[in-house]
Amino acid sequence: MSLIVLGTVALDDVKTPFGFKKDLLGGSASHFSMSARLFTKVELVAVIGEDFPGRFIDFLSRKGVVIDSLQRCGGKTFHWSGKYEGDLNAAITLNTELGVLASFRPEVTSSQKRIKNVFLANVDPDLQRHFLRQMISPRLVGLDTMNYWINNKRASLIRLLKEVHVFVANDQEARSLSGETNLIKAAAYLRSLGPKMVVIKKGEHGCLVQSRDFTAAIPAYPHHKVIDPTGAGDTFAGGFMGYLSRARGLDLSNVKRAAVYGTVAASFNVEGFGLTRTAHLTSDDLERRLREFRRVASF
Amino acid sequence: MSLIVLGTVALDDVKTPFGFKKDLLGGSASHFSMSARLFTKVELVAVIGEDFPGRFIDFLSRKGVVIDSLQRCGGKTFHWSGKYEGDLNAAITLNTELGVLASFRPEVTSSQKRIKNVFLANVDPDLQRHFLRQMISPRLVGLDTMNYWINNKRASLIRLLKEVHVFVANDQEARSLSGETNLIKAAAYLRSLGPKMVVIKKGEHGCLVQSRDFTAAIPAYPHHKVIDPTGAGDTFAGGFMGYLSRARGLDLSNVKRAAVYGTVAASFNVEGFGLTRTAHLTSDDLERRLREFRRVASF
Repeated sequence: MSLIVLGTVALDDVKTPFGFKKDLLGGSASHFSMSARLFTKVELVAVIGEDFPGRFIDFLSRKGVVIDSLQRCGGKTFHWSGKYEGDLNAAITLNTELGVLASFRPEVTSSQKRIKNVFLANVDPDLQRHFLRQMISPRLVGLDTMNYWINNKRASLIRLLKEVHVFVANDQEARSLSGETNLIKAAAYLRSLGPKMVVIKKGEHGCLVQSRDFTAAIPAYPHHKVIDPTGAGDTFAGGFMGYLSRARGLDLSNVKRAAVYGTVAASFNVEGFGLTRTAHLTSDDLERRLREFRRVASF
Repeated sequence: MSLIVLGTVALDDVKTPFGFKKDLLGGSASHFSMSARLFTKVELVAVIGEDFPGRFIDFLSRKGVVIDSLQRCGGKTFHWSGKYEGDLNAAITLNTELGVLASFRPEVTSSQKRIKNVFLANVDPDLQRHFLRQMISPRLVGLDTMNYWINNKRASLIRLLKEVHVFVANDQEARSLSGETNLIKAAAYLRSLGPKMVVIKKGEHGCLVQSRDFTAAIPAYPHHKVIDPTGAGDTFAGGFMGYLSRARGLDLSNVKRAAVYGTVAASFNVEGFGLTRTAHLTSDDLERRLREFRRVASF
């Protein structure tokens, strides 16, 4: 079944110990789509400015991402500049230019309103809510956010969480929103806000997924080749939601498998700048690495 | 096959958000033995002072730990005081009184010299070396250390690593000794110093085990009930080495299983102060939790 994602399509400037790249195609919705497309049809809802290169639009289409609701507005595309130092786990934001994102109102086509699987990637929770209101009867709603919204739009975010099935957060966000340092307790608190399931992404340390009935733990794929982690969390979410979009329910077996696919997809993302590596990814690549991952991490 | 461990037997004062306990039986060799005993016969080599309670000696014997080389010397028992705050992953040392440990020279009986499996728990690398020199033809030698020795006896430690098969370190120690932030690269560097295998313990994030042929990743048992993590790393090492002492080799399957047993043993350790929980642990308890761990972490 199709999956619709609301998020950002951005131009990124990224500096890591392995180089500096300008004007990469980035943003939460781009990274999410690049892995989710390997599981299901993905429809992308985002905004771009007048400066957004046509080749990136062609690229998204060529990858099978439906861009009927990719709005182009007057102004500049959302632009993020960041760097990573020694420990590539933590991005340091150098600059954020919202551009057209500042006045974005997401709108979907009438056929898109009937899509059953929805992911609200990281944007203002009020935009996430405006978008979700347009969906007629979603079966699976996932949401990601960031510390900025936790600190500045906490009430909006908490209200929205009541309408969400799967809340995806990184460890810092989970701790910050819950006030708990133990991540298992943090997940339990976050579930009490509404979501049936909480996914805590821990970067190089893997992830935890908690529902009422279980807490699953999956390590990261052990990788020495980390070139640029930008978008790894979104790539994980794309694999996770992509797999669940075609699965029958949120039972432990499906959820572990979704987390493993998300982990494997993210392990490719970090191997190159931006979408370099995930742009060329095939289902065969995923399956091959999944077998290797199982060999070293399953027991 | 038997396993001999050199390490500390200590009296610990521990403060965590869940309470304060004085004069607990602690030390690397005590915690190690409490899990290793579930896999094989464990012989303990350590020193205690005049103040060491007889009931703790009886306790170790009752648990099947061979204490023929537990020396009692004039002076005070090694005493550690520490606390844990919000994030129970990191111990804050408040005070260390070496006491009889300062002049300890480990000596083993003639029959102990023939024991094939050896673990050098955290003590001065010169003591570890002095002890290892007495062993006639060890088949499996493991070693743990701490940042203090990495900073203050680096040359001794590096020399000793050439004689070790399995080097067990936590993430900070691995980064500090290797100068690498990526833990996979850190493990590769540490292997270049001699050990066939490097185990990196990451506390709540599980562990990595690297040999020439593989890097295995096992998450921690997802646990909300962390009361006192003191000795969790030693308990892990006890399970890991205990399992390998009776296994046929260091292949991936054995090593993953050893890491899983270490993880499961450590998951009990953190549930109570000191040895409270591991003192009563049975093989059945381990197997039961292993099944639950597999359910939520294997795929």
